[in-house]
Amino acid sequence: MSWTLTAADLPDLARGATLLGTGGGGDPYIGTKLVERVLGDGAITILDPDELPDDLFVIPTAQMGAPTVMIEKIPAGTEPTLALRTLEKHIGRRADATMPIECGGINSMIPLIVAAETGLPVVDADGMGRAFPELSMETFAVYGVHGSPLALSGERGETVVIDTGDDDRQMEWLARGVTIRLGGVSHIAEYAMTGADVKRTAVPRTLSMALALGRAIRRARDAHTSPVQAIVDTLAPTLYSEVRELFVGKVSDVERRTTEGFAKGSAVIASLDPGDDDHLDIAFQNENLVARRGGEVVAIVPDLICVVDMETCEPVTTEGLRYGQRVRVLGISTPEMMRTPAALAAFGPRAFGLDEPFIPVEARQYA
Amino acid sequence: MSWTLTAADLPDLARGATLLGTGGGGDPYIGTKLVERVLGDGAITILDPDELPDDLFVIPTAQMGAPTVMIEKIPAGTEPTLALRTLEKHIGRRADATMPIECGGINSMIPLIVAAETGLPVVDADGMGRAFPELSMETFAVYGVHGSPLALSGERGETVVIDTGDDDRQMEWLARGVTIRLGGVSHIAEYAMTGADVKRTAVPRTLSMALALGRAIRRARDAHTSPVQAIVDTLAPTLYSEVRELFVGKVSDVERRTTEGFAKGSAVIASLDPGDDDHLDIAFQNENLVARRGGEVVAIVPDLICVVDMETCEPVTTEGLRYGQRVRVLGISTPEMMRTPAALAAFGPRAFGLDEPFIPVEARQYA
Repeated sequence: MSWTLTAADLPDLARGATLLGTGGGGDPYIGTKLVERVLGDGAITILDPDELPDDLFVIPTAQMGAPTVMIEKIPAGTEPTLALRTLEKHIGRRADATMPIECGGINSMIPLIVAAETGLPVVDADGMGRAFPELSMETFAVYGVHGSPLALSGERGETVVIDTGDDDRQMEWLARGVTIRLGGVSHIAEYAMTGADVKRTAVPRTLSMALALGRAIRRARDAHTSPVQAIVDTLAPTLYSEVRELFVGKVSDVERRTTEGFAKGSAVIASLDPGDDDHLDIAFQNENLVARRGGEVVAIVPDLICVVDMETCEPVTTEGLRYGQRVRVLGISTPEMMRTPAALAAFGPRAFGLDEPFIPVEARQYA
Repeated sequence: MSWTLTAADLPDLARGATLLGTGGGGDPYIGTKLVERVLGDGAITILDPDELPDDLFVIPTAQMGAPTVMIEKIPAGTEPTLALRTLEKHIGRRADATMPIECGGINSMIPLIVAAETGLPVVDADGMGRAFPELSMETFAVYGVHGSPLALSGERGETVVIDTGDDDRQMEWLARGVTIRLGGVSHIAEYAMTGADVKRTAVPRTLSMALALGRAIRRARDAHTSPVQAIVDTLAPTLYSEVRELFVGKVSDVERRTTEGFAKGSAVIASLDPGDDDHLDIAFQNENLVARRGGEVVAIVPDLICVVDMETCEPVTTEGLRYGQRVRVLGISTPEMMRTPAALAAFGPRAFGLDEPFIPVEARQYA
């Protein structure tokens, strides 16, 4: 069912989107401020993907770059709509709606900025079902919609249109090169598709799920009940039904560098018991990729590895990891359409240079 | 006067274009082979710039990249026309003619490939009056025509359209980033302009001048007369009327690296007399930028610094410099429109990070 989003929903949406960002996706807090400024007292229509007319023309919009740069380089706010308009002009067709390409982090907010500016509705779906670091890691591409032509905009009004045909990895490679030269952040419009394409290729209702997660965590805190249980209960009826607590501990080491347009690194979560050397290692490329306990994989992409504050369940991004933080690490199952062989080829462990096979987080045994 | 070019002209044109490349611009020999293949027994119409209708629509075409990569990565031949067609589609107007953006090196040939493929005529003019390493170093830009929108194509059919408004340096920066990610070479169409713009902003008749230079050198060799004198006599009635022999010697040192999309380095030309430590130092970024003798500048950009074989006057590119080669180094004056304060700001010594002021090659005294 379609619904209406107002500025009052933004803090909850930001919290849920940060959780689904699995450490990456950029900080959506800045995004909420940009949406608020344009939206004011207005409202945004959110379209249910199942109800889209087959010939609706949808142009997704997003921000591209390393989250570590995104939080230092605040967009003017007009860039994403410029990217959309540039792609419309290139294709020769106006968009009927926009949509997120990923539901984690700041990219849950960018289509809302475009919607607030243009009056377009936003489709409640996305192409990553979480956050991923590269533009080619999309269920859209896995199920036959390609990213080209892509339009990209910079903060000084620069526009770039990239067309690599069916080669979404080459599109990512060239767009990343431009983004680096624009200072590390750009805004993009890509994966233009019809309503029929959305139904076939998108992960459905992830925007409403992010909002529901953020709201459930807040209400549990207010009611002094368990926010972790609230996450479990919120996800149970969704495509993300399995939640596992992988570890509880404190951040004892973080190594992070911004390189080749990405934030890459690793973190160690140590046991809270000083005498216990049990610990969890997390490796990330913008997003958390794999969690290992005692050298053994306990969760791996594309399943979600989410670090949250131990008490409040506030999600912690990779750039927010600080020595001594007490955290819980949650593993969350991704939808089946993200675990097919074709999907795993696009964004499974090997796509990130990891040698371990994908094993669903719910299939593992824990001590 | 307009004239007709055939395949028989290509070897002379290549020789003259290599001379005007001042060490850079890429090896036009590969370009002649590509033109020959498409042109066959056909002919290309070369338009005199003074005779262009004011509303003629001209889209210049070129290759972009480091010459050191260009000679290893042979284009398929279809890329420059793809760049032209992409820009035509973006602008919404078909080109009436193409034109070189630089008259030195391979970029004297690229518009000929486009002409042979499309049947378009080529304007006998360019925007550098020689070769320069960056897309913003154009008399077009100095006199008010900007490079954007620029269309760029890759060997796998990728296309990129870049629009940075009036900011030609930002256009160069982004296009260079894409070119590096395409492996170091791309093909471009940019600086779309009218016939009136050509008359106001282009260096006229440089294509015919390159052909005349190449032909004069060949004929002098055949007649056993001095090829250096042939160069002097050919240039005397042109906008490049002053020629100075800066040094005669042998290459004793070459340092060259391909970095940031450019071939950068330096060469030392030592005296032929073993007891004499007199020598000439040349610094280059794709093209030769400055020649110093005993630490004293004897020629500097935008004047031409040309290294040629001591006997045959065959031009030697920076990537062709070899230890022990016996060479002459010539300094050639550039047209007045390339020496104005606005022109020197775009491609004078400071644009290359050189501290010395521009002094015309003909104004210097030699020992």
